Amino acid sequence: MADPSAFLSDRARGVKQSAVRDVFDLAMTPGIISLAGGNPWLDDLPLADLGTIAEELVARQGHLSLQYGAGQGTPELRDAVCSVMAADGIAGADPEHVVITPGSQAAIDTAARMLGNPGDVVVVEDPTFVGALNTFNTWELDAVSTPTDEEGLIPALLRTTLQRLRAAGRRVAFLYTIPSYANPSGALMPAERREEVARICREEDVLIVEDNAYGQLGFQDGPVAPIAAAHRDQVIYLGTVSKIFSPGVRIGWALVPPALLREFYLSAESAFVCPPVFSQMLSTAFLTRFDWQAHVARCAAEYALRCDALVDEMQQSLDPRVTWTRPAGGFFVWSRMPDGLDTLPLMHAAAEAGVVFVPGGAFTPDAGPHPHFRLAFSFVAPETLREGVRRLAPVLNGALPGLP
Amino acid sequence: MADPSAFLSDRARGVKQSAVRDVFDLAMTPGIISLAGGNPWLDDLPLADLGTIAEELVARQGHLSLQYGAGQGTPELRDAVCSVMAADGIAGADPEHVVITPGSQAAIDTAARMLGNPGDVVVVEDPTFVGALNTFNTWELDAVSTPTDEEGLIPALLRTTLQRLRAAGRRVAFLYTIPSYANPSGALMPAERREEVARICREEDVLIVEDNAYGQLGFQDGPVAPIAAAHRDQVIYLGTVSKIFSPGVRIGWALVPPALLREFYLSAESAFVCPPVFSQMLSTAFLTRFDWQAHVARCAAEYALRCDALVDEMQQSLDPRVTWTRPAGGFFVWSRMPDGLDTLPLMHAAAEAGVVFVPGGAFTPDAGPHPHFRLAFSFVAPETLREGVRRLAPVLNGALPGLP
Repeated sequence: MADPSAFLSDRARGVKQSAVRDVFDLAMTPGIISLAGGNPWLDDLPLADLGTIAEELVARQGHLSLQYGAGQGTPELRDAVCSVMAADGIAGADPEHVVITPGSQAAIDTAARMLGNPGDVVVVEDPTFVGALNTFNTWELDAVSTPTDEEGLIPALLRTTLQRLRAAGRRVAFLYTIPSYANPSGALMPAERREEVARICREEDVLIVEDNAYGQLGFQDGPVAPIAAAHRDQVIYLGTVSKIFSPGVRIGWALVPPALLREFYLSAESAFVCPPVFSQMLSTAFLTRFDWQAHVARCAAEYALRCDALVDEMQQSLDPRVTWTRPAGGFFVWSRMPDGLDTLPLMHAAAEAGVVFVPGGAFTPDAGPHPHFRLAFSFVAPETLREGVRRLAPVLNGALPGLP
Repeated sequence: MADPSAFLSDRARGVKQSAVRDVFDLAMTPGIISLAGGNPWLDDLPLADLGTIAEELVARQGHLSLQYGAGQGTPELRDAVCSVMAADGIAGADPEHVVITPGSQAAIDTAARMLGNPGDVVVVEDPTFVGALNTFNTWELDAVSTPTDEEGLIPALLRTTLQRLRAAGRRVAFLYTIPSYANPSGALMPAERREEVARICREEDVLIVEDNAYGQLGFQDGPVAPIAAAHRDQVIYLGTVSKIFSPGVRIGWALVPPALLREFYLSAESAFVCPPVFSQMLSTAFLTRFDWQAHVARCAAEYALRCDALVDEMQQSLDPRVTWTRPAGGFFVWSRMPDGLDTLPLMHAAAEAGVVFVPGGAFTPDAGPHPHFRLAFSFVAPETLREGVRRLAPVLNGALPGLP
């Protein structure tokens, strides 16, 4: 047989993920404090009651919950996620236009599958979600970043980016955006800016894939209506139960413009046949038999406390030249070292010191050095977050150039 | 905005699936007898005990079962599926070389993702699994069929196919094969032929993706050792709990040659982050706390009864010009009308008569007409199978040319 690497596709040879993979492997080390993964806080879930439901779903409804299900997802869950979308600001979504996926990563993958030809461009925020970049990479899509500020995508520069790509003869498969409490930046795009982005994309004939994993997790304010709310025909909207209920069930969904529904659905089916059925039934039970919005409100309050603890300790322990943006919701504090420094080597030094984070290079298709880094506060108790920052401080402060 | 179809990728425009989709939609009609879907029989499952376990997994271990898990799958399930593979004839598989996927369709998709460049060839059996053809299609892989007989792939013709492709300058990404009780043909490849296929592929430098969903479901005989058993370095082996436990949990796996493991794992992660965690824990419980092999033996006995009923009624009710291969295991009877007839229009006539099957054209990349059709006996009770054949008989017999 040939050298095994001869069997790999070009895209598999190009898989870029070692840094992040290293982080998550390191995060498993006993005693280490992980500020890396965006795991949700699950302690508020009504586990005893959910356990009773789980028993019933298997013992009495096992002929359904353990059998193949419809490729598009159960009608009950498609109804339930329409209620979730209504709470987010998307009124009157039709369950017939919803496709359930095994997590929203699979929905991103499906969108790339059905929309992108190899060599096409996906326009992404700088920074953007590492998982989306990985998917685009395997579809041989060229992720091109467009600048953001503390309110997300900068509309005028988005227009420039799209016009530049058009002038270069590039096909833009879609814009991928996370307007609410973005991963990793935490940015919240205001309503007016969402309208502007929608208008620019309509004028430039670019479809939008809107990822809204965190929209309900504002610390003070309710959700800002998704772009899809008023622009249903130009947006594939992605939701998930991962941050409001459970990521382990692997349930996400897409609300798809009717004209693209059939292709989305068939593309999804070609990847995974149908989403897990027990997971769908348990998610439906959580969304219909419990006050899920009260749960989400308690989660958001806990995340706010954790964010406060993290930021407070950063203020106390880190050199003022280490900066960050304080988020108003979500899971992450997006932080940065001075220009010219690269946080990838610091990740390894931090792991030695007993704490891990994700270096900024993971969140952009552009070459380094990357002075940014992402700290996740969602899964770690406040006192442990403080200890994590105290472990991080000598590594970060020590990497700064000596003051004159 | 442009015409929405302008947003589609070339592959999404080429999605070929309407016939099969139609069948499964038709199969939902009340009163219809479905001989279409390969759903397993679940009545033998210990649902009450599994329900108790489900409760415990959520109520007491919800912090694990509802949280993100490792991308490669839980160590416990990777251990357990190594026992399943041992029962199949693959001794000493290392759990470190196993990647759990959300169903084995996702593993086929991952193999295509990591191995195939657009325009490459995947060599497939004629006929082969429709879901695999759909996946290859979305990766813009060119499925080229190679002939089979009642013992599966014909080695000499496989060699001819591979040599012809090489002479034509085509890159062959891999051979996709279902050696045991194939879907849809039911063919069981004997041990010697497996060795020959492995030797030919080694000599021709072609990797094998071996799909073994049905291997333990022989009506009389134990499993024939998979090709992977003696050729670990040249085979990506795919297993699933869908036919031996539950398809609704969506749990499959791949045993990957070590040299390709990292790329397989990262490709999988880019598609779905991690497999569903509760599903993995319930599958582990089934495989470790119950006598799953006794369950599988009872299932195989039930499938044998159902196959007998189906074939017996076919003998009684169908014109002798309708022929079939009686399988020795699995879920399907692969049947055919005389040459020149196409079964696609007959599917619609059959649905009118209250019964559905899958027309043969679904199982091949080659253009029609296709005289074959697939009848699934796995999910339907014997008396209902007989009634289904009786409904089918006037449709099939009536489509035959008048005798002279």
